[in-house]
Amino acid sequence: MSRQQRQDLDDMLRNAPKTAGDTVEQARTDFATLFDVPAPGGVTVRDTTLGGRPALELTPDGADGDTVVLFLHGGGYVVGSPRTHAALAGDLARRARTRIISLDYRLAPEHRFPAAVDDGLAAYRELLERGTSPAAIALAGDSAGGGLAVATLLAAREAGLPMPAGAVLFSPWADLTLTGASMEGKLGADPIFVRADIEGYRTHYLGGGDPAAPLASPALADLTGLPPLLVQAGSNELLLDDSVRLAAGAGAAGVDVTLRVWGGLPHVFQHHTALVEEAGQALDDAALFLAHAYRTAAAEPATA
Amino acid sequence: MSRQQRQDLDDMLRNAPKTAGDTVEQARTDFATLFDVPAPGGVTVRDTTLGGRPALELTPDGADGDTVVLFLHGGGYVVGSPRTHAALAGDLARRARTRIISLDYRLAPEHRFPAAVDDGLAAYRELLERGTSPAAIALAGDSAGGGLAVATLLAAREAGLPMPAGAVLFSPWADLTLTGASMEGKLGADPIFVRADIEGYRTHYLGGGDPAAPLASPALADLTGLPPLLVQAGSNELLLDDSVRLAAGAGAAGVDVTLRVWGGLPHVFQHHTALVEEAGQALDDAALFLAHAYRTAAAEPATA
Repeated sequence: MSRQQRQDLDDMLRNAPKTAGDTVEQARTDFATLFDVPAPGGVTVRDTTLGGRPALELTPDGADGDTVVLFLHGGGYVVGSPRTHAALAGDLARRARTRIISLDYRLAPEHRFPAAVDDGLAAYRELLERGTSPAAIALAGDSAGGGLAVATLLAAREAGLPMPAGAVLFSPWADLTLTGASMEGKLGADPIFVRADIEGYRTHYLGGGDPAAPLASPALADLTGLPPLLVQAGSNELLLDDSVRLAAGAGAAGVDVTLRVWGGLPHVFQHHTALVEEAGQALDDAALFLAHAYRTAAAEPATA
Repeated sequence: MSRQQRQDLDDMLRNAPKTAGDTVEQARTDFATLFDVPAPGGVTVRDTTLGGRPALELTPDGADGDTVVLFLHGGGYVVGSPRTHAALAGDLARRARTRIISLDYRLAPEHRFPAAVDDGLAAYRELLERGTSPAAIALAGDSAGGGLAVATLLAAREAGLPMPAGAVLFSPWADLTLTGASMEGKLGADPIFVRADIEGYRTHYLGGGDPAAPLASPALADLTGLPPLLVQAGSNELLLDDSVRLAAGAGAAGVDVTLRVWGGLPHVFQHHTALVEEAGQALDDAALFLAHAYRTAAAEPATA
């Protein structure tokens, strides 16, 4: 079953229309159409604001009222929104029985680096200012949102804020130097991206900025003091080494980290619970990680 | 609690007598004394043979009669035995409810590379020849035994044997080139080893042989076709990057892999269930991994 599921997903993605070369507006529209899937049943969705930005609050039936996940969507810092990721964030909320606030952070090229990080930090800061215990907060994100989640942790650390309970990163884009071996090694195996796609996103986000800046490439930064991280990736990703480098950096810095790579699966396969059973298993793993992180953080609060 | 436990374990190991500079015989005696801990209650231990070598069979009460773990103990390919690892292997057997056969493979310097790999392969081959389904077999090992487990998988693959269900690796020593960044970066943080200890083991095992040979440094080998791997390490290890490189290599080869690094814990902390709660949690994670691996392999047998 599963081997066939992986192949079917690969075929579907490989044959999906490509948006490279489109204008930014066209790419946003195409992406929104591709991911026009609502949150799952049993999850209440409402518009809100956080840190001065619009946001979507997703509350599952039976949620633990004390915990919240700050979710940062993917899309290369250029496309996507909380709406395009309502299904993914909602599914995570449902499985983890936790409220999620999905932030509509500012996008490039209109708002370049570090605007997105500023928004992530402002959102996290407001959660704390509302009186939420850091031990009851986690971060999550996919692709660029995964890198942004780690960058937000680094920015919070630099600002002297306490660390949240943990962070869940689905196929994070966390190394904008594009020097990972997988950028070459997974060419062809990746059914979604070629290098030019990722270079295009990088140009929009950084302009001429330094791709090795810690908040742009948190996989290469000093991760000392960060809370436990869960990193999930597919093996068929140009961005696989972003995940590997994050895990390596976390271990080097003495941070608890779990990296799980699924063979034969693509970038952010967690979107595709209807197609591959591993997607649901990965989200269940993420829910378990969050439960454990909240429990551990409550028992032993961060000292930062 | 846990932060204090990690510190206490670190103190204990840092103050333990060091055996570097001892003769091989003295080192073996010291190691056997240090690890003179029997298998836990509820685990029946008996002497047996496998692949022409002595072995210890550990059978927990209530074991699933169909599954078996081939366990390869640590000790730098020079010291240790199934007896020194009866507590660790027995605890894994108990938590995973599976029979374990712990192999007394030949040690260096009397028997240099690839004698240990030959013994591992012969043991795996005999399990298959006895009629055990590969889907009911897993490999496990700690330290040098973790590297040996991966080398055994590679040797089995080269021999055209079907792959087992998976492998569990506790702080594997899998890169005998000693070029990982952690070999420098974790000096001082590692409460057990300095570089000379590991160089000493390497010299005994390889003589003048090539440390980059795939069966000596499986973390650097092409891991294509290997079954799912679980890699556990502490962040306070000179050998941390052996684990990271194994995970990177597995992902590059499209192999399912989970790497978990515990911040502030030492090499093969799973020995110390009485001191740190993470040790038991890690063994429970390994038990869950094995259950999942057996179930998955039974549903979708390897094609090798």
